[in-house]
Amino acid sequence: MRHVCSLCKVACLRTLPTFYRLSLRNAVSRTLKLQQPLTRNTSQACNSFCQRSHTCGELRASHIGEPVTLYGWVQYKRFDFMLTLKDAYGITQIVAANTQNCISSVLSKIRSESVIKITGKVQPRQNEQINKEMLTGEIEVLAEDIELISECKDKLPFQPKDHAKVKESLRMQYRYLDIRTSKMQENLRLRSRIAMKMREFLCNHHGFVEVETPTMFKQTPGGSQEFVIPTRHPERFYCLPQSPQQFKQLLMVGGLDRYFQFARCYRDEGTKPDRQPEFTQVDLEMSFVNRENIYSLVEGMIEYSWPSNKTNLTLPFPKMTYADAIAKYGTDKPDTRFDMKLHDVSDIFINSGLSIFDDALKSTEGTVQAIAIRPHTHITNRDLENLQKLAKTRSEHGVIFIQVKDETTWRSPISKYLKDDMKNRLGDLLHMKPGDVILLAAGKYLSTCLLLGHMRIAVADLLETKGVNVRKTRSNAFVWVEDFPLFLPKENGKCESQTVELESAHHPFTAPHPEDAEFIYTKPDKVRSLHYDLVYNGAEIAGGSIRIHDAKLQKYVLDEILKEDSSSLYHLLEALESGAPTHGGIAIGFDRYISMLRGTQSIRDVIAFPKSWEGNDLMSGAPTKLTNEDIKDYHIEIQKKKS
Amino acid sequence: MRHVCSLCKVACLRTLPTFYRLSLRNAVSRTLKLQQPLTRNTSQACNSFCQRSHTCGELRASHIGEPVTLYGWVQYKRFDFMLTLKDAYGITQIVAANTQNCISSVLSKIRSESVIKITGKVQPRQNEQINKEMLTGEIEVLAEDIELISECKDKLPFQPKDHAKVKESLRMQYRYLDIRTSKMQENLRLRSRIAMKMREFLCNHHGFVEVETPTMFKQTPGGSQEFVIPTRHPERFYCLPQSPQQFKQLLMVGGLDRYFQFARCYRDEGTKPDRQPEFTQVDLEMSFVNRENIYSLVEGMIEYSWPSNKTNLTLPFPKMTYADAIAKYGTDKPDTRFDMKLHDVSDIFINSGLSIFDDALKSTEGTVQAIAIRPHTHITNRDLENLQKLAKTRSEHGVIFIQVKDETTWRSPISKYLKDDMKNRLGDLLHMKPGDVILLAAGKYLSTCLLLGHMRIAVADLLETKGVNVRKTRSNAFVWVEDFPLFLPKENGKCESQTVELESAHHPFTAPHPEDAEFIYTKPDKVRSLHYDLVYNGAEIAGGSIRIHDAKLQKYVLDEILKEDSSSLYHLLEALESGAPTHGGIAIGFDRYISMLRGTQSIRDVIAFPKSWEGNDLMSGAPTKLTNEDIKDYHIEIQKKKS
Repeated sequence: MRHVCSLCKVACLRTLPTFYRLSLRNAVSRTLKLQQPLTRNTSQACNSFCQRSHTCGELRASHIGEPVTLYGWVQYKRFDFMLTLKDAYGITQIVAANTQNCISSVLSKIRSESVIKITGKVQPRQNEQINKEMLTGEIEVLAEDIELISECKDKLPFQPKDHAKVKESLRMQYRYLDIRTSKMQENLRLRSRIAMKMREFLCNHHGFVEVETPTMFKQTPGGSQEFVIPTRHPERFYCLPQSPQQFKQLLMVGGLDRYFQFARCYRDEGTKPDRQPEFTQVDLEMSFVNRENIYSLVEGMIEYSWPSNKTNLTLPFPKMTYADAIAKYGTDKPDTRFDMKLHDVSDIFINSGLSIFDDALKSTEGTVQAIAIRPHTHITNRDLENLQKLAKTRSEHGVIFIQVKDETTWRSPISKYLKDDMKNRLGDLLHMKPGDVILLAAGKYLSTCLLLGHMRIAVADLLETKGVNVRKTRSNAFVWVEDFPLFLPKENGKCESQTVELESAHHPFTAPHPEDAEFIYTKPDKVRSLHYDLVYNGAEIAGGSIRIHDAKLQKYVLDEILKEDSSSLYHLLEALESGAPTHGGIAIGFDRYISMLRGTQSIRDVIAFPKSWEGNDLMSGAPTKLTNEDIKDYHIEIQKKKS
Repeated sequence: MRHVCSLCKVACLRTLPTFYRLSLRNAVSRTLKLQQPLTRNTSQACNSFCQRSHTCGELRASHIGEPVTLYGWVQYKRFDFMLTLKDAYGITQIVAANTQNCISSVLSKIRSESVIKITGKVQPRQNEQINKEMLTGEIEVLAEDIELISECKDKLPFQPKDHAKVKESLRMQYRYLDIRTSKMQENLRLRSRIAMKMREFLCNHHGFVEVETPTMFKQTPGGSQEFVIPTRHPERFYCLPQSPQQFKQLLMVGGLDRYFQFARCYRDEGTKPDRQPEFTQVDLEMSFVNRENIYSLVEGMIEYSWPSNKTNLTLPFPKMTYADAIAKYGTDKPDTRFDMKLHDVSDIFINSGLSIFDDALKSTEGTVQAIAIRPHTHITNRDLENLQKLAKTRSEHGVIFIQVKDETTWRSPISKYLKDDMKNRLGDLLHMKPGDVILLAAGKYLSTCLLLGHMRIAVADLLETKGVNVRKTRSNAFVWVEDFPLFLPKENGKCESQTVELESAHHPFTAPHPEDAEFIYTKPDKVRSLHYDLVYNGAEIAGGSIRIHDAKLQKYVLDEILKEDSSSLYHLLEALESGAPTHGGIAIGFDRYISMLRGTQSIRDVIAFPKSWEGNDLMSGAPTKLTNEDIKDYHIEIQKKKS
């Protein structure tokens, strides 16, 4: 395919078949910045070691008269002699000298999203063309030479500028077009910048060592969510790790006392929305620390890497016990940006005559809990019905609403049971005013709190859809949650002869709280742990703990309490016998954290090439079909379909 | 287990069962540096956010009188009142006040490699104790309080101090003990420091964006060395990628024009010594570049991250064509630290009467090549025999030696064929002197050059075992090798009707050299590529290329030249049609590079938890046996053993 310019009669084929080239003048002065000295000047940093002189976002009035070489994607064309050229850094207006020259004859054929090279000179825009909204709006580039680098095909599945209207599956299928949008560019660039700042904080300021640990490891006890990798050894498999937990503890035993890693982790959870089979943790571990040390370190790291366009953080972050979080927020991930806390109203409803309350309070674990809503807007009966429906998905009895019309008129399905004394006490405790709504729930303590915690979020969501600013948007509410239980009753566990089967609330390496250490051998279910979570605007973004560093205690926990086979952890137990420091650490869910900082709908928006909720790469089609022939080295066979 | 001090009669149980604590004095002033301000001072950086006041390597005479808290591993004990305490930063001498107190009674029981905490005061050493060789040799710490954090078991498989004598499999099995050695600490810490410096160079100085790409991907065409991961979808598998090649090209199409990543890559090569199934590449890609831009960037990055204790680098690195590398060094990985180059001596041996030469020179591809060795030491006949044996493993005829005894006496199996004229010409060409040895080989050009290239290294190794300094040790010889062939005849390929089946010399995305572009449709086997390798002291440490950015050319290469099914790369071809920039990049083999910088025997020495050459993790036992029950979600079955 040769392109001959109809005016110049010059064959423009250059080195490769689709390189068109159109020379207007013989000698165009070029300012390619080859091998330029290192610079800290970020505006020029992106032009080192490449063929452009400037990005499409950096030319200003001060550059007028300078010869420049720009590369970019054609955004808009106007009248065959003017176009806007874009790249990740901005947009520059390009004009051809006049409508009759060769440039415009090439321009007329170039489709948008094609890549071109422009050499030319910076000139001021005509007065009526100046665009103060645009960073490069005072100038334009008079093109002296245009080269078509790569022609865009006729019909793209979507134009990058329209990406907000495009459904996500199409964005994922054509991810490279999606990445061309300024939103995705900023997501990925912010992610990189924050990772870099965190590394500076850890490596350069606090003596941490980044260590890469294997991703081809072995199955951990109970590791049912681990992907397996068959090997050339019959029956033997690697597993992809859910975290580098064992490795980081072994590094501590190895005296590498300040470890971190941006660790790729893997979890096969089947199909869950907004989960990814592979994800990234900022994983760190230190020797000779207590949990407050870890809190301070993480606070310092978040502050150091905090985006400059966000409101300043207040350090230290507040702390809350697990018990308080459940009691006040009905969750271990409290969103402390708004109030609407839980209140224990059991006392008020003792012998209320209402069977749902009386039945609950018969048990020592029973409770009646309330939250008060100040709607600041009209809540319809339909809204309340929907909330009740939601509640019933979580609890047989759901919740009970009381609408406080005025001081005496309380509208509720249970209004005939509400004596004046009860109303007074409830009103005082919850500071009720006319227009407010009370939500009540009764039952076992934990499940009742969790139900109301769930309703609290649902009510906040509902009010926000009606325009009430419940969560102080732009506010950044971090809170440490601590003093979790060390063990929980096993789901579907047996309950023989009064002994409840226990499982680790987090993982079996978590140290017991020193104040409860004596109970570990007697009442392990009462022992709190040294686990901690960092919660950010109601989402758990980090979790960690001080670890068990004593081999005997670790073995006791595994063998006697968890009834796990500790033999597969023999190497770790042996390591703890070989001189182990006290140690602890944390892992930050980096995808989630960046997603929250950017306020994206999904973590997929801060991952360059995410998988769909079914685990598919919609762009490449992975995972793909393989045959027995393809996997013949691995001593496995594809199961025959059941007929 | 309670520990009661026999002198103090104080129960020393603290919070956890094996925490022993022995209080000598009630009020020991402590200087725990909790929540201290951020500091750039590296000597203090390692003490932020933890319980020690100082590391074991930092106390000096200037600290005398200061109260300190140290944690570390017991190295040596002397007389039950003195010990040396070590951590990753150094060693400090600890003394008890006198031999009769509680500290010494605890000390007497502590085994080396146990972890202890010491609080005490820095004091000068007695004159005869001062050790100028030791950084902390002017001081010692007078212990006021000792706490046993973790007792080391009686008999470790090896003492870290003895690790040089321990065989590698034992070091790998007890990797945490191995990591406790200063050698492994420095390997891992240097690796982290260099990675950090490279990131600073790329991110902070040159506008690169670090992007994490998936490690669960799809099989690439011809990806027979890719590990597979079964999924919950019948017959469908992910593959672990050998490199992020496709992703980085897609990022370029997405306008993310300066990408890098410390990328984990995977390759199932069965059992090969000094290979790892997972390894790390410093992977980068840029838009709008030529290969010289990439050279300059990499040179800048290596210089920026160059270890301060090494001799300075000279930039730019020299360049060499592939053809020159083969002609002069008999390899595409030339070790340019020493001479001993290949010489084409075909002209000299035309019609020599020696069938091995005459047969070779009959063919247009035939050659006779020579290298000259100046041994500077005695080479025995046995040495020559061994070299010949090695040569015969690579070529039927092996090599021919000529020992130049003096100007007229040339001892050789072919001496009767060596006419004076030949001797003169050989002597002149190779600058022979008495004592020198000539190695000759004849045959097809490439295989003959490769044979002598191999012998060149073997001779250098031999001479070095005899104490001759052949390679200038401590010299750092970097060289860029370029102008590789784009395609090579396929190994085991068919050769029907004059057309030789071709395969990519590197990968199918490599761009052809512009000077040869016209041949791609006519004589593809003659086309050079824009691939380049960076060779460091004879090892290839990086490879990259300018890529094809034209969809039609890419499709032609895949379909017409390589006869690959391009449908599995449909997404990439589609991307190239959607406005693709010119682009290129490189990947540095980071494990190998760090291993060479540290001069370690194997890349395993710079990997925290490496696998054995059979792919086993000797510490944890991975890969481990799984049963059909363990993998039941994945629609695969373990193959029944053949009886």
